[in-house]
Amino acid sequence: MSHHDTEYFDAESSAAKSGGTTKGRSLKQEQTRARLINATRILMTQRSFDNITIAELTEAVHVGTGTFYNYFHSREELLEAVAKDSFESLGDALDTALSTLEDPAEVYAASLRHLIRYSLNDRVWGDLVVQMGGTHPLLTRILGPRARRDLLRGLEAGRFKIDDLDLATSCTFGALVSAIDLGLKGSPILPMEKHDEIFATAMLRMVGMTSIEAKMISSRSLRDISF
Amino acid sequence: MSHHDTEYFDAESSAAKSGGTTKGRSLKQEQTRARLINATRILMTQRSFDNITIAELTEAVHVGTGTFYNYFHSREELLEAVAKDSFESLGDALDTALSTLEDPAEVYAASLRHLIRYSLNDRVWGDLVVQMGGTHPLLTRILGPRARRDLLRGLEAGRFKIDDLDLATSCTFGALVSAIDLGLKGSPILPMEKHDEIFATAMLRMVGMTSIEAKMISSRSLRDISF
Repeated sequence: MSHHDTEYFDAESSAAKSGGTTKGRSLKQEQTRARLINATRILMTQRSFDNITIAELTEAVHVGTGTFYNYFHSREELLEAVAKDSFESLGDALDTALSTLEDPAEVYAASLRHLIRYSLNDRVWGDLVVQMGGTHPLLTRILGPRARRDLLRGLEAGRFKIDDLDLATSCTFGALVSAIDLGLKGSPILPMEKHDEIFATAMLRMVGMTSIEAKMISSRSLRDISF
Repeated sequence: MSHHDTEYFDAESSAAKSGGTTKGRSLKQEQTRARLINATRILMTQRSFDNITIAELTEAVHVGTGTFYNYFHSREELLEAVAKDSFESLGDALDTALSTLEDPAEVYAASLRHLIRYSLNDRVWGDLVVQMGGTHPLLTRILGPRARRDLLRGLEAGRFKIDDLDLATSCTFGALVSAIDLGLKGSPILPMEKHDEIFATAMLRMVGMTSIEAKMISSRSLRDISF
C-alpha cells in the first residue's frame, strides 16, 4: 500500500502477493485485479471512494472500462478488496517492524499507536475504517488473530491480566475504531499528537497493567514504519 | 419500552413523553407517532425490522396505511426514531435504578452490565445496536453524555484514572458494541452469564482501577431493572 502515485503498475504490490482469492484467475488477471485495487487505494489518499469513477481506474491500469466487471461484481466488492488488502498490508508491516521488540506490552501498544496514527494521517482511510465499524468481519478476521496473538503473548509472559482473550480482542477493535472516529472529528481537549499515546495507555490498562506502567510504555518513542 | 404486547396504545409511552421533535405536530399526531414507534419496538422483540410491514404497524395503531408517511419520511426514519426512543428509555431507566448507588465505579459497571444483558436478551435489539455501531450519532449523543458524566464522577471521586474523558467515553461505547457483537455470536469460551461481568471488569481496568478491585465491583449482584 504505497502512497506514491507512480506505482499503479507495480505487480509486486501486496494485493498481488496476498491474492487469497485466486478462483481460477490467470496470473495476468490476478495482476490486473491487484492493479485496480492499488489504483483505488492511491486515489483514496486524495478523495473519498464515492468520488472515484470506474472509468478513471480502468484508464489508470490500461484496460477497457467494460472489463472492470470481469474483476469485481460491484463497486462495493472493489472497496472490500481494497480494505482487505490494506488490512493485510498493515498487519504484515506491523509484524515485520515490531518483531524485534521483546516486551509483548510494547508490541501491543506500538501496534495500536501505529494504527491510530495511520488512520488519522490518511483521512479517507480513517473515514472508511470508521464507516466499516469495529465489528466488521474484514477487520476482525484479518487483524483480529494478530491482536489476539499479541494479547496471548502478554498473558503468557505475565504482563497482562485478561479474563477472556476473545472479549479483550473485540474490545480492542471496538475501542480502536471509536478512538479513530474521535480523532478524525477532532477532540476538543486532546492534543492530536498525544491521541495514540493516550489510547494505548487506556488499552494497556484494560488488559490489567498499572496506570503508571501503561503510561510509560505508551509514551516510548515510536519508530516510523512505511506502510 | 415495554415487552408486553398489550401496550401498543399506551399514550404514556416514553416515545410520547420524550417527544423532542415536536415540529408543530398536534398532540394527537404526536401520540400516533409515539404509538407507531412503540408498536415497532414491540414487534422487534419478535423479528427483525426488515420483516415488519408498514401495513401491520398502521393496522396496530388504527390509522390508514397511507398516513404512515405523514409521520415518517421512510422506514429508516422510523428505525432511527425507535433507536432514539430506546436509548432514551434505557438511559432514563438506568439513571433511576442506579441513583441510590454511591460508588461511581459501581454505577459505571452496573450500567454497562445492564446494557450488555439487555442487548443479549433482546437479540433483535442487540443486532440493531451492532449494525448501528459504536460510533453512531444516536448512541454517542444520547448515552454518551451519561457515560461521560459517570466517568467524570469517578474521576472526581478519585476512583478512576483517565487521561481524556472524551476518549474514555468513546472507547467505552466502541468496546460495548463489540462486546455485544461477540456475545450475540456466542463466544466459544466465555460463559454467557459471565459476559457482562468480564466486560465491566475490563472497562473498570481501562479507567485505571486495579484488576482485583475491578473484578470485585463487577461481580456484585445486579438488581433487575424493568426497561
